[in-house]
Amino acid sequence: MSKLKIDFGNMFTSQIGEYGLTEGDMAPLKEDVARVHKGMNEKKSEMVWRSLPFVQDEIVKDMKETAKKINEKFDAFVVLGIGGSALGSKALFSGLKHLHYNELSRKKRGGARFYVIDNVDPDRMNALFDVIDVKNTCFHVITKSGATVETMSQFMIILNMLKDAIGKDYKDNIVMTTDKEKGTLKKIVDEHGFKSYIVPDGVGGRFSVLCPVGLLSAAVLNIDIEALLKGAGDMHQKCENENIEENPAYMYALTHCAAMKKGVNISVLMPYADALLDTAEWYAQLWAESLGKIVDNKGNTVHFGQTPVRALGVTDQHSQVQLYREGPFDKIICFIKVENYNSDVKIDKPDMVMYDANYIPGKSMGELINFELTGTRYAVTKSGKMNMIITLDKVDAYNIGALFMLFEMATAAAGEFLDINAFDQPAVETGKQATFALMGRDGYEDMAKELKKEVQSECVYTL
Amino acid sequence: MSKLKIDFGNMFTSQIGEYGLTEGDMAPLKEDVARVHKGMNEKKSEMVWRSLPFVQDEIVKDMKETAKKINEKFDAFVVLGIGGSALGSKALFSGLKHLHYNELSRKKRGGARFYVIDNVDPDRMNALFDVIDVKNTCFHVITKSGATVETMSQFMIILNMLKDAIGKDYKDNIVMTTDKEKGTLKKIVDEHGFKSYIVPDGVGGRFSVLCPVGLLSAAVLNIDIEALLKGAGDMHQKCENENIEENPAYMYALTHCAAMKKGVNISVLMPYADALLDTAEWYAQLWAESLGKIVDNKGNTVHFGQTPVRALGVTDQHSQVQLYREGPFDKIICFIKVENYNSDVKIDKPDMVMYDANYIPGKSMGELINFELTGTRYAVTKSGKMNMIITLDKVDAYNIGALFMLFEMATAAAGEFLDINAFDQPAVETGKQATFALMGRDGYEDMAKELKKEVQSECVYTL
Repeated sequence: MSKLKIDFGNMFTSQIGEYGLTEGDMAPLKEDVARVHKGMNEKKSEMVWRSLPFVQDEIVKDMKETAKKINEKFDAFVVLGIGGSALGSKALFSGLKHLHYNELSRKKRGGARFYVIDNVDPDRMNALFDVIDVKNTCFHVITKSGATVETMSQFMIILNMLKDAIGKDYKDNIVMTTDKEKGTLKKIVDEHGFKSYIVPDGVGGRFSVLCPVGLLSAAVLNIDIEALLKGAGDMHQKCENENIEENPAYMYALTHCAAMKKGVNISVLMPYADALLDTAEWYAQLWAESLGKIVDNKGNTVHFGQTPVRALGVTDQHSQVQLYREGPFDKIICFIKVENYNSDVKIDKPDMVMYDANYIPGKSMGELINFELTGTRYAVTKSGKMNMIITLDKVDAYNIGALFMLFEMATAAAGEFLDINAFDQPAVETGKQATFALMGRDGYEDMAKELKKEVQSECVYTL
Repeated sequence: MSKLKIDFGNMFTSQIGEYGLTEGDMAPLKEDVARVHKGMNEKKSEMVWRSLPFVQDEIVKDMKETAKKINEKFDAFVVLGIGGSALGSKALFSGLKHLHYNELSRKKRGGARFYVIDNVDPDRMNALFDVIDVKNTCFHVITKSGATVETMSQFMIILNMLKDAIGKDYKDNIVMTTDKEKGTLKKIVDEHGFKSYIVPDGVGGRFSVLCPVGLLSAAVLNIDIEALLKGAGDMHQKCENENIEENPAYMYALTHCAAMKKGVNISVLMPYADALLDTAEWYAQLWAESLGKIVDNKGNTVHFGQTPVRALGVTDQHSQVQLYREGPFDKIICFIKVENYNSDVKIDKPDMVMYDANYIPGKSMGELINFELTGTRYAVTKSGKMNMIITLDKVDAYNIGALFMLFEMATAAAGEFLDINAFDQPAVETGKQATFALMGRDGYEDMAKELKKEVQSECVYTL
């Protein structure tokens, strides 16, 4: 029995007909695999995120000790971060902990309540303050650059509150993770001696879940970090194989890039488990921000990118599957199946006539959800839509670690296939600068002027 | 000051250049407006959901009384439904209530804890059972057809638990909403005398939020139903105008259909408020299931449909905006702006050197989030990507009601523009039948045989 299985069979014309990938679609990319593999090898030392499963024994030990103290001392643990600094923690939390964790008793939880605040919505922030007492809360402030405006704003608000509430010992309530030498937050760490962790060079935000950015959350949540890293490490080994027939990351990248070249511009990740919805959300950042690029490495204008969509089975069968089946041939649906849920619920026959619904009793929810997945996959395949399926024996730390690494390696490989830089995000700059300008930051006066110009729209409706 | 403003200005070449909509793109659809309007008028009596804001005085009164009793007697209220039977309740709940509602004290909440269980994930179901006591919980079972396998399964599980826990009075813990005369659940209601509400004919699941399907949740949550319906009613009046210059639903439909005809196959809804994320989720069903159609009304094979994507500002600026700016010209981004949040958080200057982040203090989170929206909209527009913006003066029941009706009317009008049936979902049938077959329902033996055939995939990887 395998832990994790990846089946690309329904991507091809042999299974889905006209709109599948043909040998002709695949051939040019298959010829490219040697070049891709060479690129992946040559850049391996820059892709420091690939080493994370193997080099963190010391750091993990330290984080576990820190986590133990946090859980002993505090009632709540709050991650302050956004994008790559938040999505990994969210995926780990909902993926591996009780789905109503914060509503359980302290005893049942076995640790502090857990929140990730990845927005600057004031109502969200105040809602948090209604359910935590900052005095009894530990905040993990995460920004690689040390300058992220959202996170630094949150940090300042918290800092003021903690100083007011606690006084001189306020620092005990804060842990910081940032660059090892650069940035505002690093200066603050050094000047005031906050407990801190490092985001290593070569670990971009969206590739950072397996460094302290995500792992401190895992430690506080008493998640099996060794298993998480073991899954990632095993998958990494699998995805280093130069032979694409043995390398699922390369095959994922190849099929998605071949489809992209045919105009398939949507990548749906649809787990059949509430626990994995945030993993799909994490994937959405990874795939979008890495591959959504205007120029390739030669400077050609390409406007590449596939829009990731996170869906949930069976729920979205009643929302999206009508479109997936009858709509355009514009997407790849990647199902995630869970063979064994952590628990099950038997559907016993009620002491009441059930009329047409009499076929239901005797089964369990775990059976039902997997029957529905089989049925939906069958239906989507019948409609000739590209789909694939990843099967997990169960949702555990090992498999989630393996999924993280699979998608990270697939993303990097897709960058090589497309010959783009999968590791930058230049387009986010303009919006940041515009925010600086509107916040009145020195040096952005011209932009502020431009932004404050009232653009007269010709098409406005009011109520 | 308007309550709600809709600005389509950045959809057009005049603002975004080459990839915007041109007069030439718009002209044929503008000529079609008279036909669309005629269709909307002729079918008005079938589109019963349009009348919901105006005809429910009696029902609302009854629901309020029921809700009062529920809140007096029960500690938790659980919606059992899926798709259109769940998404409206979720949008109302997170849209108009505290973002950590269930973690507040009973006194602060002012009513029962609230859950929507819209999946058959056994771990989700068991997680619910860990935080509720069925004895003290009221379940609202919603299925229009009275046959939805997910909801009927949940119902049977609950029924057995309630009978075990309570005995003969178990019926007090259940309210049902279903068809007025057809279906299994209706038979059960009649036979056993459960408290029940009706989904009127002509109100499909995805158009049902403003009937008891969504309104009983609203009542239990002490949401201002009158304001909700008033917003919807006012918007409906606006969207009945035959003149497209006065009708935002027609303009929404026209611009989106014109873009669709140019290959724009993605519709992003990106509110800058955590509270509105589930409204975007609700929209995703409405837009996908209504317009994702293989044939038009003349029987032509069309494969229409735009894939809806729900995004969250500012959070997804750090996840999706890189793609939105640099990627393909394949999407419309509809921003939702909130002028006044319900609360704010001032960012005071900390008693600590803040280096490069010194420009931040003195502003508030409410200012920051809106600066970021302005900046991102500016950046996306600079990149020549189609975008539009809906501005709410605040997130309240009136505006959410108005948004529901705006999108419903826009969806119906888009169905007319595209000459498709926006109110059916035939493609969901195959998956349902496959589930029946796998569940062993009589009459589906052949399908079961086909489904149980092992398809040999040629492309499998294991770990």
